[in-house]
Amino acid sequence: MAEVKLHGFWSSPFSHRVIWALKIKGVDYEYIEEDLLNKSELVLKYNPVYRKIPVLVHGGKPIAESVVILEYIDETWPETPLLPTDPYERAMARFWIQFGADKDIVFRAFFQSTGEEEQEEAAKEVSEVLKTLEEKAIGEEKFFGGETINLVDISYGLLAYWLKNLEQVIGIQVLEPKTLPRLCRWAEDFLHVAVIKENIPDAHKMQAYMRGRRLFLNSLSMNN
Amino acid sequence: MAEVKLHGFWSSPFSHRVIWALKIKGVDYEYIEEDLLNKSELVLKYNPVYRKIPVLVHGGKPIAESVVILEYIDETWPETPLLPTDPYERAMARFWIQFGADKDIVFRAFFQSTGEEEQEEAAKEVSEVLKTLEEKAIGEEKFFGGETINLVDISYGLLAYWLKNLEQVIGIQVLEPKTLPRLCRWAEDFLHVAVIKENIPDAHKMQAYMRGRRLFLNSLSMNN
Repeated sequence: MAEVKLHGFWSSPFSHRVIWALKIKGVDYEYIEEDLLNKSELVLKYNPVYRKIPVLVHGGKPIAESVVILEYIDETWPETPLLPTDPYERAMARFWIQFGADKDIVFRAFFQSTGEEEQEEAAKEVSEVLKTLEEKAIGEEKFFGGETINLVDISYGLLAYWLKNLEQVIGIQVLEPKTLPRLCRWAEDFLHVAVIKENIPDAHKMQAYMRGRRLFLNSLSMNN
Repeated sequence: MAEVKLHGFWSSPFSHRVIWALKIKGVDYEYIEEDLLNKSELVLKYNPVYRKIPVLVHGGKPIAESVVILEYIDETWPETPLLPTDPYERAMARFWIQFGADKDIVFRAFFQSTGEEEQEEAAKEVSEVLKTLEEKAIGEEKFFGGETINLVDISYGLLAYWLKNLEQVIGIQVLEPKTLPRLCRWAEDFLHVAVIKENIPDAHKMQAYMRGRRLFLNSLSMNN
């Protein structure tokens, strides 16, 4: 039995957060792909509260919720630390990670939006969040983590890649280089980091999946 | 200038989380009461993202968001640790703290609910959350932290006291000893801890405030 296992889903940005952290730390792991419409008994047993991926299993013990998993990875394999050592800098990092988690609902709403008006409205909400990141979170350094990426960068990977692909699917640009120069520069730099570049889903496949999932979610809400 | 300052509000459970942690750690601090309808320039400057209390200021540097503040306090004043030392136990603690944060919206909805039907519906949602805590989070030990309280207990202080008072205001019991024996026992034990008992708002004053705030929020939503 592998010491470390990750139950994930190929296109999930939350699974990828964990993959990136494990790769940066050089932790060997077994990856188990889950069928989201028919999740394994193990995932339901390991994460009875949310019944969701990702779930990391280390020495038989399961951990759910990507942000919790990331902190666990950083504490368990302390080499190449992914949070600052200074408590104040750690607090700032956690503040922005939590901000992203709080605003997750805004990105989901954009993902699910249909019709010109609703899409524009959802895009405006996303732009507000991005503006806050541009003006208050991103500094002069290359990454949130300074010269190298840290847990904040990893937690915002969703913006750098998934949001870019979603823009293509919906046909609305929210990561606008003129109004968000630092964030757009960050997204580009982030995708050039080897461990990220080598561990992201194929864009065409993901866009096809996004289109299908948007139809699926839309049919669910129409049946309500 | 005091080294540590806390901007809070007398009836806020989130301010109290921070107060309890500072008291347990034996950290001297200056408390600054904020007028929520007319917040000080300082709070807006210190927490430009959420513009909310609590804000902890340590050596002139501000930290917002109670969960982030709690971790900061635990790392900055490491004596009497408030998180387990084992990484897996820490992950479990963070999982449940985050679960509470995720479900905060359910408690807010109960707080704001009006009319018998809406109140019953909101109470049912609260009961679901409490059931999860009863069945999956609370163990055989006295507190989440074992024999003494830790950050999980502190983060659920809202249940032990504010929810009990809200029950009185709304007239619906959700902390039902028959169906939630462990959680009710925990709430009682928690309120018997000296640092908690000595640092909670007066029940009558708080219930009066809750009644007023419910009217206020209701008038806001009627004007929308």
